[in-house]
Amino acid sequence: MDFIKHHIALIEKEIETIPFPQQPSNLYDPCRYIFKLGGKRIRPVLTLLAHELYDNNSQKAVPAALTVETFHNFSLIHDDIMDNAPLRRGMPTVHTKWNTTIGILSGDVMLVHCYKLLTDHYSGEELTRLLKVFNRTAAEVCDGQQMDMDFETRKDVSIDEYIHMISLKTSVLLGCALKMGAITAAAPAEDAAHLYEFGKNVGIAFQLQDDYLDTFGDSSKTGKQPGGDILAGKKTALVIECMEAANENDKVLLDETLHGQSSDKIERVLALFQKYKIADKTRKLVEQYSQEAIQHLHKIEVDQQKKQSLVSLTDFLLNRQH
Amino acid sequence: MDFIKHHIALIEKEIETIPFPQQPSNLYDPCRYIFKLGGKRIRPVLTLLAHELYDNNSQKAVPAALTVETFHNFSLIHDDIMDNAPLRRGMPTVHTKWNTTIGILSGDVMLVHCYKLLTDHYSGEELTRLLKVFNRTAAEVCDGQQMDMDFETRKDVSIDEYIHMISLKTSVLLGCALKMGAITAAAPAEDAAHLYEFGKNVGIAFQLQDDYLDTFGDSSKTGKQPGGDILAGKKTALVIECMEAANENDKVLLDETLHGQSSDKIERVLALFQKYKIADKTRKLVEQYSQEAIQHLHKIEVDQQKKQSLVSLTDFLLNRQH
Repeated sequence: MDFIKHHIALIEKEIETIPFPQQPSNLYDPCRYIFKLGGKRIRPVLTLLAHELYDNNSQKAVPAALTVETFHNFSLIHDDIMDNAPLRRGMPTVHTKWNTTIGILSGDVMLVHCYKLLTDHYSGEELTRLLKVFNRTAAEVCDGQQMDMDFETRKDVSIDEYIHMISLKTSVLLGCALKMGAITAAAPAEDAAHLYEFGKNVGIAFQLQDDYLDTFGDSSKTGKQPGGDILAGKKTALVIECMEAANENDKVLLDETLHGQSSDKIERVLALFQKYKIADKTRKLVEQYSQEAIQHLHKIEVDQQKKQSLVSLTDFLLNRQH
Repeated sequence: MDFIKHHIALIEKEIETIPFPQQPSNLYDPCRYIFKLGGKRIRPVLTLLAHELYDNNSQKAVPAALTVETFHNFSLIHDDIMDNAPLRRGMPTVHTKWNTTIGILSGDVMLVHCYKLLTDHYSGEELTRLLKVFNRTAAEVCDGQQMDMDFETRKDVSIDEYIHMISLKTSVLLGCALKMGAITAAAPAEDAAHLYEFGKNVGIAFQLQDDYLDTFGDSSKTGKQPGGDILAGKKTALVIECMEAANENDKVLLDETLHGQSSDKIERVLALFQKYKIADKTRKLVEQYSQEAIQHLHKIEVDQQKKQSLVSLTDFLLNRQH
């Protein structure tokens, strides 16, 4: 990600300046800790890149960028509690290193700090525009997380519902990050809307591809155990597409195999995926959402050359070489 | 509370209009449920009363009032998880009726809805002023909750630290409620600040008195089991004052008695409270913070007669007959 290394460095430096108080340390140390665990900082970089489409000096977008990254980290703390996850990026999660109570409360205060960042750095119509997209997105991320949990106990989830869920749970925050950058640069409302849709669709394509690569990817490139999702019995896009396409016997077979512990679990699920051409279907879905994203990027009224970093970032996220 | 029954009725009616979506129902049913459990609605009524000091039509203050009440209910959901509380107002808590995951997430989305209420109904400088006091208060309530948890494992908490903790955990929200009503009525900044201090000090007096009444109150009036806090070994203002005043032997005796299960636990603790004149000291503290509150109310530049409902509400909260 050489082309955005300066942006990442800027964000890393600015994260240090977020004014979390020293006391009570059991409340604010976890806030500093979750940021220190790192991450790719894609979301705040998107805010800066969107701003730079209209204004070379993206300093004005920094508080909005930090708001998005703070929200992302708040959601990691609470999600890790809900998922009972012991580790995040190889380190103990907040509720494991401290306790669940501290995890809940430090997440809460991080959510409040998102709004402090916005209120302390923006005003008037600009603040209202930022808050409107951020409020909507924050509520949608909660909606998506709840839908994800609801889906665990349902056997009739459609691929459309699944895509709606991942869109809310993860993709709208990418759209929000971009739109906030457009707002801080006083971009036209149509452009801000296209940037939002660009980010949302890239996010959906990325999540679908993530499901695809876990099963069909080259594990030397993905760095993941191949078929990990199948072994864990996860309800991925692949499983949901297969459930939609399969006949009644195969539906039962897929469900039983996924939730069973047979030694040839991966092979048996792969055979069903092959029978119903799931790899092909998923690649087509990824392509469809990527194209949708790119079309929104085309509609933005700035020089093609200025959009290059957003195109490169999309290629990077979607693992493409051009 | 006859003098505010119209205000309470208005708030109850307006709560019904908070636009929580229908779906996902596992996310938004808990939001509706916690509101349905009731409560005295003191905080939103304070917002209306503060507004009415300057403007008879308090409709403009309603979204701010609902913000404060929504925040209060968000904090109840998360606090009940942290306190492992099975019941609230005689009904199952959200995390008991649903589960902890849903409790965390529905609390989160309620906090976001606080900001939606403000963003959707206010703008410009007014919105910024409302957000500044609300952000600060929301973070302080988290600070106070964390301090309360930290105090549980400390033996050297001073009465000043304890008062600072209850001020953050519960009293600043009363100050915030009043200040927001002043802001929506475009009151002078000095008045808004005095109203904030009035509310904060009433809140501190109320909490100290709550501790006092649990041990020294007339149980036919309080409706509580006398000495319930002592039986539970709670670290109340009384215990902290006694720990500060007692000699080394009595400190150990108080600590052991509070955490023991002797059949004459209440009598033994009461004997120590009597030896160190704790009832008297606490009454003086309650009086001190009540006086401080009233002084701030005096400094507000509106007709004395207009302040009568705030005086009556203070008398009601502090259990006084005039």
